[in-house]
Amino acid sequence: MFKAKVLIKRRPSILDPQGVAVEKGAQHLGISNIKNTRIGKLIEFDVDLTDRTAAEKEVNDYCSKLLSNPIMEDYEFTLSEWIPSGEEVK
Amino acid sequence: MFKAKVLIKRRPSILDPQGVAVEKGAQHLGISNIKNTRIGKLIEFDVDLTDRTAAEKEVNDYCSKLLSNPIMEDYEFTLSEWIPSGEEVK
Repeated sequence: MFKAKVLIKRRPSILDPQGVAVEKGAQHLGISNIKNTRIGKLIEFDVDLTDRTAAEKEVNDYCSKLLSNPIMEDYEFTLSEWIPSGEEVK
Repeated sequence: MFKAKVLIKRRPSILDPQGVAVEKGAQHLGISNIKNTRIGKLIEFDVDLTDRTAAEKEVNDYCSKLLSNPIMEDYEFTLSEWIPSGEEVK
């Protein structure tokens, strides 16, 4: 079993209107030193496989087919092995 | 100047219907070893302050007043000092 943590970001060249909007809201609240807000996704899940290579393939499939938009976004992930009854191995 | 990276997650006790929906989609695509998908947010921005304590306060304000829903979500962040012309200091 692995625990996967995926971070998805818009490519730097692509505008982030949601970030712009939140930042404007901040200025109205007097939070005025924040710049260049970019909003992405954090996705965490378990992968029920014992082989790391197979688990990486599963995560890549999940990311590229469902979680991210490959035209506009990049993703990166970490996998940590995990024994359900105990602690993280790595 | 600091670069901030904020991760926002739903509290573990709160259901994540979006995660459940995406995972069902995965099963239809034959990606069947994924469990317990939880979808959160990754937010990155610059803080235009030189004092770390002041920058931390600014990030806490931004997170608690705008970025996260304190009833349902927890946030954590890292701040790395950054000199606009050069590389990350820490």
